Order: sequence, then C-alpha cells, then structure tokens
Amino acid sequence: MPAPTNLNDLFIHELMDVYFAENQITKALPKMAEKATAPALKKGLEEHLKETKEHIKRLDKVFELCGTEARGEKCPAMDGILKEGEDLMMEIEDSDTRDAAMIAAAQAVEHYEIARYGTLVAWAGLLGMKEAQNLLRDTLAEEKDTDAKLNRMAEDKINKKAA
Amino acid sequence: MPAPTNLNDLFIHELMDVYFAENQITKALPKMAEKATAPALKKGLEEHLKETKEHIKRLDKVFELCGTEARGEKCPAMDGILKEGEDLMMEIEDSDTRDAAMIAAAQAVEHYEIARYGTLVAWAGLLGMKEAQNLLRDTLAEEKDTDAKLNRMAEDKINKKAA
Repeated sequence: MPAPTNLNDLFIHELMDVYFAENQITKALPKMAEKATAPALKKGLEEHLKETKEHIKRLDKVFELCGTEARGEKCPAMDGILKEGEDLMMEIEDSDTRDAAMIAAAQAVEHYEIARYGTLVAWAGLLGMKEAQNLLRDTLAEEKDTDAKLNRMAEDKINKKAA
Repeated sequence: MPAPTNLNDLFIHELMDVYFAENQITKALPKMAEKATAPALKKGLEEHLKETKEHIKRLDKVFELCGTEARGEKCPAMDGILKEGEDLMMEIEDSDTRDAAMIAAAQAVEHYEIARYGTLVAWAGLLGMKEAQNLLRDTLAEEKDTDAKLNRMAEDKINKKAA
C-alpha cells in the first residue's frame, strides 16, 4: 500500500491493520479456549470468538462505506502480542498459572484493539463518516466490556488460584 | 528463562517483558519527538520520555524488592507496535497526517503498557507485595494520564488539521 498522504488514507491503513488483527484473533481464540482450564475463562474466550466474527462483519461494512475492498495489512504488533501469549500458553504446565497468563495475554490483545478502535472512531468523526463511526463505536464498547470481564475474572478467582 | 511454574515466576517474567518494552520506548520517543510537527505533540513526547525513565527506575526497585536482577526479556509485542509506528512515521510526508499517525502509534504503546501494568498491579496484590504494587500503580496512573492527554491532543487540534 502506498504511503498515506491524508487522514482518509490513514483511516484506510488503520482499518486494514485492525482487519488483519481481528482475523489473527479468530485463529488464536479457539486454541486459547482449548488450553483454558477454568470454565469461566473457557466460556469467555468462546464468547469473544463470536463477538470477534461480528467485529469483522462490521469492518466489512466500514470498508464498503469507504468504497474500498476489505483486506488486511500485516500487523506486526498483533503478531507479536499473540506470539508472546502463545509461547507462554504452550510452555506453562501448571493449569492455574497458565490460566493467569492467558488472561494477561487476552487483556494485551483487548488493549491493542481499544487503542486502534479508539483512533478509528475519532478519525471517522473527523472525516464525517457517521455510519462508520457508529459501527466502530459499537465494537470499541464491546472490546472495553471484554477487558472489564477479564479483569473481574482475574481478580475474582483465577489469579487467586494461581497464587 | 525457564517456563513459569507459579504466579511469582509469571510476575518476574512480565516484569522483564515490560522492562524491555520501557527501554525500547526510551529509544523510540526521541526519534518521534524529532519528527513531530505540532509543538504540543513534540512537548508531550519529550515529557513522556522523562516519565518513562522514571518508570524504569521504579521497575529497578520492584526487581530489587523481588530479590531478582533487573533485566529485560525480548518483547515481540512492543517491537511490533514500535515498528508499525516507525514505518508510518518515516514514510508519511504530510506533516499533519504524520502527527495524527504518531499520536495513534503513541496510544498503541500506552495501551500495551496499561494492559501490562494493570496485570502487574493485580498480581503484586495477590502475591502480597504492597510496596511493589504501589510503585506499579503509580506508573499505571501515569500511563493512563498520558493516553488521556494524547486523546485530547488528537481531538482538539492535530486530527482536525490532518482532516
């Protein structure tokens, strides 16, 4: 993709980044859910997979509103975040410790998405794209909600078991 | 480093991850400040460099409280986040667009740190490490504050110029 020359280009660039990221997440979540021991964590990861598929559909609509073909652009940030999580998940043998590490990894994923969708919502507003902004804002709210759920899960039970 | 077998090991692992990340950020921030055009952004990045050096000192203390030598462990997540930001920063020629991209990159960095310090604060609490928890909580508050400042900067001026 050529270098962005204005905010509209940058918006499309960031859409492609997050589109790639969401698609990588749909591959990672089933592996994480399979490795999770605490039922609440397993269920949470499975539910977030459904939400993530919905986020991809919303991004498809946003690309359509921009008149641009939906496609991802390699995102080294999300690759790095997922790699760190997967390495730990595979090497930790104690199930409570592994669950705690997986919650931390999932929260790093959520925060990356919160940053990216936060930016996209602001830029859609500045570009006067109200419909796109609403779609992106819905996803941002769900990512924040998932992060809050992971927090509660960690504080309530899973971290206490690992400690 | 061997695979973590309990929450204490995981805490040290995550400390090393964030120690590496903070040190990479101290290398990236001066380059970003140099490339920034808007005076508010330039100043914000320079101030955050000072804070980041303070965060590293706090991490040194936390390592000391753990009786562990302070050292970083390669963090592919932060490498990926910084690489994405640097690539865009170098290839965008329009200064307003570049400033908008740099704010977005800085917010991705902040959110990674918010996720990691949030986890460390929770784990320090579960491990009964009150002093370490307070140090980490101070840094977490400053990272959140920096993210909020970047938000305001983006909404107030810089993104409007880029649009």
